Amino acid sequence: MAKFPLLHLRVMLTSDTMLGPGKADLLLGICETGSIAAAGRRMRMSYKRAWYLIDTMNAYFREPLVTATKGGKAGGGAQLTATGRAVLECYRRIEAKAARATARDLETLTALAASQLRLTRPNDGRPHGRRSG
Amino acid sequence: MAKFPLLHLRVMLTSDTMLGPGKADLLLGICETGSIAAAGRRMRMSYKRAWYLIDTMNAYFREPLVTATKGGKAGGGAQLTATGRAVLECYRRIEAKAARATARDLETLTALAASQLRLTRPNDGRPHGRRSG
Repeated sequence: MAKFPLLHLRVMLTSDTMLGPGKADLLLGICETGSIAAAGRRMRMSYKRAWYLIDTMNAYFREPLVTATKGGKAGGGAQLTATGRAVLECYRRIEAKAARATARDLETLTALAASQLRLTRPNDGRPHGRRSG
Repeated sequence: MAKFPLLHLRVMLTSDTMLGPGKADLLLGICETGSIAAAGRRMRMSYKRAWYLIDTMNAYFREPLVTATKGGKAGGGAQLTATGRAVLECYRRIEAKAARATARDLETLTALAASQLRLTRPNDGRPHGRRSG
């Protein structure tokens, strides 16, 4: 279960191209499963939707983030390129650094919250501001 | 004009109560205009919508963020409470700290972007990662 308050962030690459938790999880899924379809299924996302999200990223970056091979002896598959891995790692760093930098201020918001709501976030010693999910 | 890539962040206070740039701007507008209607108008938002947003925040925090007085000699108006000011300041700190903490990684994403897109963000010496708008 998520711990509130938590930071929800997206990187606006352009006014209409966004890199957020969904695309990052999709890249991670491809990295872990070697398949766009399997990565999409894990997120209850159609193959078409998954490809669409990858396409928007591939179009923004200098090199594609994902390459797919159709059929062949190995039955095809998908891999993150070096750029794909770099973008995923960069996004995770952005998440971690933003969470760390704002942990204390999120605690301040919690302290201002109504007491019955504060009970949903017990004081467990040192604040982290990380997501649990 | 906004400088891309930029960070877009929201604080999830609970799974369905969010504090983001819209609510922060509304609080600032009330602070600056002394009126919910005027603050809403500045954002092309109905009075009803503005009150709804304020209500969701008032319900979350220990004390209301905004108090309104109807009529009277001064013609009524709205003010931020001490809690309202504290929440607004806290949110602005969260924005600033997250932007500062992630500026270098946003630059890394820019460096990985396709060159024609990089032209929309000329290298102006030292990176800031701040919004211009």
